[in-house]
Amino acid sequence: MILDGNDVSKRIKDKLALQVAALEQKGVRPCLATILVGDDPASATYVRMKGNACKRLGIESKKIELPKETTTKELLAVIRELNNDSSVHGILLQHPVPSQIDERAAFDEIAIEKDVDGVTTLGFAQNAFGFAHYPSCTPAAILAILDHYQLPIEGKHAVVVGRSPILGKPVSQMLLNRNATVTICHSRTENVSDFVEKADIVVAAVGKPNFIQGEWIKSGAVVLDAGYNKGNIGDCEYDGCAQRASAITPVPGGVGPVTISMLLKHTVEAAERSV
Amino acid sequence: MILDGNDVSKRIKDKLALQVAALEQKGVRPCLATILVGDDPASATYVRMKGNACKRLGIESKKIELPKETTTKELLAVIRELNNDSSVHGILLQHPVPSQIDERAAFDEIAIEKDVDGVTTLGFAQNAFGFAHYPSCTPAAILAILDHYQLPIEGKHAVVVGRSPILGKPVSQMLLNRNATVTICHSRTENVSDFVEKADIVVAAVGKPNFIQGEWIKSGAVVLDAGYNKGNIGDCEYDGCAQRASAITPVPGGVGPVTISMLLKHTVEAAERSV
Repeated sequence: MILDGNDVSKRIKDKLALQVAALEQKGVRPCLATILVGDDPASATYVRMKGNACKRLGIESKKIELPKETTTKELLAVIRELNNDSSVHGILLQHPVPSQIDERAAFDEIAIEKDVDGVTTLGFAQNAFGFAHYPSCTPAAILAILDHYQLPIEGKHAVVVGRSPILGKPVSQMLLNRNATVTICHSRTENVSDFVEKADIVVAAVGKPNFIQGEWIKSGAVVLDAGYNKGNIGDCEYDGCAQRASAITPVPGGVGPVTISMLLKHTVEAAERSV
Repeated sequence: MILDGNDVSKRIKDKLALQVAALEQKGVRPCLATILVGDDPASATYVRMKGNACKRLGIESKKIELPKETTTKELLAVIRELNNDSSVHGILLQHPVPSQIDERAAFDEIAIEKDVDGVTTLGFAQNAFGFAHYPSCTPAAILAILDHYQLPIEGKHAVVVGRSPILGKPVSQMLLNRNATVTICHSRTENVSDFVEKADIVVAAVGKPNFIQGEWIKSGAVVLDAGYNKGNIGDCEYDGCAQRASAITPVPGGVGPVTISMLLKHTVEAAERSV
């Protein structure tokens, strides 16, 4: 079975459209502020995609573009201004920022109630403890796909490959809170295949094209590929994995579109909570 | 090899004694405030033990005892007062609190710079991201024991049994940050033995006497027993586990004493940072 992210995404957006309409009745228009620092073309594309997705749903998108020489202090000031702007419901700082900026400090300057992208330190722990309003969007998307297709999590052995603060770490906590037994592998794991071979659920969050091989996949496993490498290539060697998996997300059209829908969902919910 | 917690603890305290003396030269006496709500005898014993350990090292211990009918609001007010008291460097709220109290709210009222027991939501995430000043004391003790005996963590497969917010979850993040591949099992894991059997490092944080059986342990594995059940019984069936493990912590005299030393260490460090 192919886990169709566009289909999951459509279902989420249909529901959001009703919520946006209800907010309009109250005179509230959800607004996501996006901050792009520098001129990395891939980052610019992501920000544009997110802005367009907002527009199509009637969510306002406020674009802030800062020069690549921006200092941490300047960026923090911009974030503080957005925190204090009651017309802004969500703030997204496009990752990565130029190297002179303290990215963690910038993320943590975002007010928790506007952290719709789930990047703050506090939000991470709230998610790990199971009470975050806005978990990181890609982990939330992975769970949404599993739930949409009614694929069980409880009691399963999930193997997460990757341990980044906005993907591998939070998704492992979310799967753990849903009663999976969770193994986290990473760049220093000696034989990743030894672990993946035993997994009922594989989450690929490595950032290396075609890293997960088809022969590593246990027959019948569920494979979620959160990788998105140059040339629209995922972290899983798709054809090989698809042969053995019972269900798999394609790249593109899998985790990616649902991630954007989660950002929209969180923005609408932040607007609802602000009323 | 028996991993002697008293030995590790002594080494830590010897170093702390020098730090306390240096602080005294500057006119600063480290002070830990302990809060005990209600009259649970086990909790009262723990608080007394911690107070005595402070005293022996020249750390002041300020004991606050509240009636078992205390409300969340009243407890939060007490914590706020301690946050604002510059003579107090660390705050310990003895767990568990009576059921009418919102324990998470109480923990999170503790100012991050006085959270020497590592119980706040924010502190959890800082620890997960590798930059906490004060990780939870039992996880910190487990790492200190491994380091004291120079037992390697990197590249090892660590299996943590338990997922509590102050033990299983943070210790798994700390092992992960030290480049172990980490599996987290819990009450909903179907065959815990299947996972423990493959572990190079086993951390028992279940709270069930003799839960981990000797025959589950891979020959040569390192076993850390953070359990402390009625009658001085750990979570591991000691004799059986000791036969197969290359190194094991006894109960009592293993993780327990080092946990208290970590609390003292964090309190002294908080005093140092306040100067």
